[in-house]
Amino acid sequence: MSIDDITGPAAAAAPVWRTSDAATRAGWLEAVADALTAHADELVEIADRETRLGATRLRGEVGRTTGQLRLFAEVVREGSAFELTVDDADPDATPPRPELRRLLVGVGPVAVFSASNFPFAFSVCGGDTASAWAAGNPVIVKAHSGHPELSRRTAEVAIAALRAAGAPEGSLALVEGREAGNALVQHPAVAAAGFTGSLSGGRALFDLASGRPDPIPFYGELGSVNPVVITPAAVAARGDQLAQGLVGSFTLGVGQFCTKPGVVFVPADAGFEQRVADAVTGAAGGVLLTDRITAAFPDGIAHLTADASVEVVGFGAETADGARPVVLATDAAAVAERAATLLEEVFGPVTLLVRYTGDDELRAALAAVPGSLTATLHAEDGDEVAGTLELLQQRAGRVLFAGWPTGVAVTWSQQHGGPWPATTSLHTSVGATAIRRFLRPVAYQDAPDALLPAPLRDASLAHLPHRRNGILVLP
Amino acid sequence: MSIDDITGPAAAAAPVWRTSDAATRAGWLEAVADALTAHADELVEIADRETRLGATRLRGEVGRTTGQLRLFAEVVREGSAFELTVDDADPDATPPRPELRRLLVGVGPVAVFSASNFPFAFSVCGGDTASAWAAGNPVIVKAHSGHPELSRRTAEVAIAALRAAGAPEGSLALVEGREAGNALVQHPAVAAAGFTGSLSGGRALFDLASGRPDPIPFYGELGSVNPVVITPAAVAARGDQLAQGLVGSFTLGVGQFCTKPGVVFVPADAGFEQRVADAVTGAAGGVLLTDRITAAFPDGIAHLTADASVEVVGFGAETADGARPVVLATDAAAVAERAATLLEEVFGPVTLLVRYTGDDELRAALAAVPGSLTATLHAEDGDEVAGTLELLQQRAGRVLFAGWPTGVAVTWSQQHGGPWPATTSLHTSVGATAIRRFLRPVAYQDAPDALLPAPLRDASLAHLPHRRNGILVLP
Repeated sequence: MSIDDITGPAAAAAPVWRTSDAATRAGWLEAVADALTAHADELVEIADRETRLGATRLRGEVGRTTGQLRLFAEVVREGSAFELTVDDADPDATPPRPELRRLLVGVGPVAVFSASNFPFAFSVCGGDTASAWAAGNPVIVKAHSGHPELSRRTAEVAIAALRAAGAPEGSLALVEGREAGNALVQHPAVAAAGFTGSLSGGRALFDLASGRPDPIPFYGELGSVNPVVITPAAVAARGDQLAQGLVGSFTLGVGQFCTKPGVVFVPADAGFEQRVADAVTGAAGGVLLTDRITAAFPDGIAHLTADASVEVVGFGAETADGARPVVLATDAAAVAERAATLLEEVFGPVTLLVRYTGDDELRAALAAVPGSLTATLHAEDGDEVAGTLELLQQRAGRVLFAGWPTGVAVTWSQQHGGPWPATTSLHTSVGATAIRRFLRPVAYQDAPDALLPAPLRDASLAHLPHRRNGILVLP
Repeated sequence: MSIDDITGPAAAAAPVWRTSDAATRAGWLEAVADALTAHADELVEIADRETRLGATRLRGEVGRTTGQLRLFAEVVREGSAFELTVDDADPDATPPRPELRRLLVGVGPVAVFSASNFPFAFSVCGGDTASAWAAGNPVIVKAHSGHPELSRRTAEVAIAALRAAGAPEGSLALVEGREAGNALVQHPAVAAAGFTGSLSGGRALFDLASGRPDPIPFYGELGSVNPVVITPAAVAARGDQLAQGLVGSFTLGVGQFCTKPGVVFVPADAGFEQRVADAVTGAAGGVLLTDRITAAFPDGIAHLTADASVEVVGFGAETADGARPVVLATDAAAVAERAATLLEEVFGPVTLLVRYTGDDELRAALAAVPGSLTATLHAEDGDEVAGTLELLQQRAGRVLFAGWPTGVAVTWSQQHGGPWPATTSLHTSVGATAIRRFLRPVAYQDAPDALLPAPLRDASLAHLPHRRNGILVLP
């Protein structure tokens, strides 16, 4: 099957999706959610075989995935995402002002690149797909090679559900292999792309998308070290709890979350290193997602320990065939000097403690931290944190003041993105506003009511949040 | 002065702008508007000398420019542009949900590339600058070589006004020359760029911005042929009026508006061509903006008339030293075949009539029209326009049903952008939502109230539009 056989039906489906009314479109998303729930046992069994993530985690992830689809159905029905805006005509203005009505509509067929580490929530029917559908677009998914059978079966289930719900042919398609993925972002029918994966893979696709004769937006979530800062007062107040929390977070899912705390700034003389060494002893590692990731993990650690400043603080439990958790340490001066080496993301259960003495040393090192999805500050009342917080805010999309960055609630206010290389764009890939990535604005000037897109007609506006002559109006 | 001497103060000013409260930031924009008004006589005199656009037009443009600054001050005060969003903690959820608060903040120093054809409204203190400031960012403007003295004087006036209003040094800077512009989009301190100009110039800068080690968003408004479709019934009902309207629009500003109707689909046998030939006789041309544009105009016409299908329908009045309006014509079959040649934008007072017979021929030609800022449909009640309208909506950011596309009201619902090559992005460069281009989202998880950005504190939310637990709340 050629790429045109895939993109043709998607292009034909695009106007149907774009002009679908909210109830119908939301129903399509919910039909897929229902089908995934109905097929959960079968899908989890395949997923566990292919990813080794375990049935419990995978079942939870199916729940998150259907939850995302249902949240986006709600976003579609609620309507503010489409930014309905009306300015009435003003014949007395100089020059006379025409009537203008504006909304956001689907941009066209969207290419979605699946992630290895979320075989449901960021794969065939994951967050990128859900938000692209909610925006009113057909989706073509590039399957991840780490779970091909799951990708195919999930697509079958979703396509059957969409068909049964009355969605057009071409609403969802699946391609496999790097070549197909490259062809997809360069195909004239594809209007935007969403990606979750490695910096190198994402950069290559970004360059293809940007290099087209007609560049398209490429929303990549690429890599993140997720800095954590712990103050001396926080160690004094709850050092053991912090050490245990850190170990729990960086080993969660065998260290394969985008939001894994990869670099932790700790006071040099507070004994926190030893607490982490104690906490990591006995922490479970596990089998990594793919052979490629399995091979890259020791390479990543070797790359770090090749730096003379880096030492091993402690190990987790030995595992027969998996990755063993490891905690490394260096000092802030080394990070400030050699951030490109020391702050490269290593996928898997490893974290790097960075000892600092005083705020000046801390901030010089923080200034070298690359853009990240998250930044976490553990401080106590009375700590003077304004300068540190400013640096963290500049570098991250989500700033946490308690807890740990792993765990990403899918809500209206969630934000999963950040300065490069966390993401390529000024948008989130998780949460309600992820829909904005796949929408484009269109305005209608002096349009007859019957020729307006349905949501912009006066009868519709009465039931939808909109802005009229600058004033927000709720239904 | 090196580029670092320019970007350094901008980078230092960025946190001040980002954290400025709404009243203060809005006041800075209004201070610039007041200063431009106060210096209008002087600035218009320089502008007229450099651009030859005439004092009347230029005085009006100063008004539009100050109006834009005041609209964005209103956008800042109103607050919805910052998408304040709160999800309260839910300890009973599985897993327990933390509190999340999200807003949009300034992305950092913005590079703005001035346009030749709007020496005020899309230059030093134009729409890109106003929206970047409103978003909370310092701005570095690359002056257009067509009006260097005006650029320098406008920057002086604005910088003095900003200083007097208490804005930080580095809030606005000016660079000149292509080299400086190229350096700007590649400089690590620059976080985004706005551009209005030619496809070739914009593409080159887009490639530089996208090719950075850390790519930045580049918002370019590059080129647009602005298709117009006139039905046989519309010609029958108001042919003379349409012919006169068309001539008025394509010759307005000597044909140098981005929204000039450059290609007009007209019924082959309705006698419309002759009406346009009559209407254009005596239409005034004029001196073009720059020597480069003056030289390119006859080249562009020669490029079109080199196609065997193209003939000259009529000319406007001869001018001593300016461009003479000209109307060309071809047929729909030629456009469907050779759109890349026939539908290239030609800056200046020329438009191309495209004769069609029947809807099939019309739609085959429309399918070849590149992305445009606007598309205009002149039809009568009873015309079957759904298929045509679908094609126009796919290709344009603003669809007009009466009037002509020149003239762009600066309002909340305005949309000035469209599929490539109209613009590079899914955003508008005119109207209130232009601010979104220069904002990035940040979320705060379980933050103490005192450490939140001021707009996200409970005391502020009471006075600002926001979303709480999924529900929009108005103050």
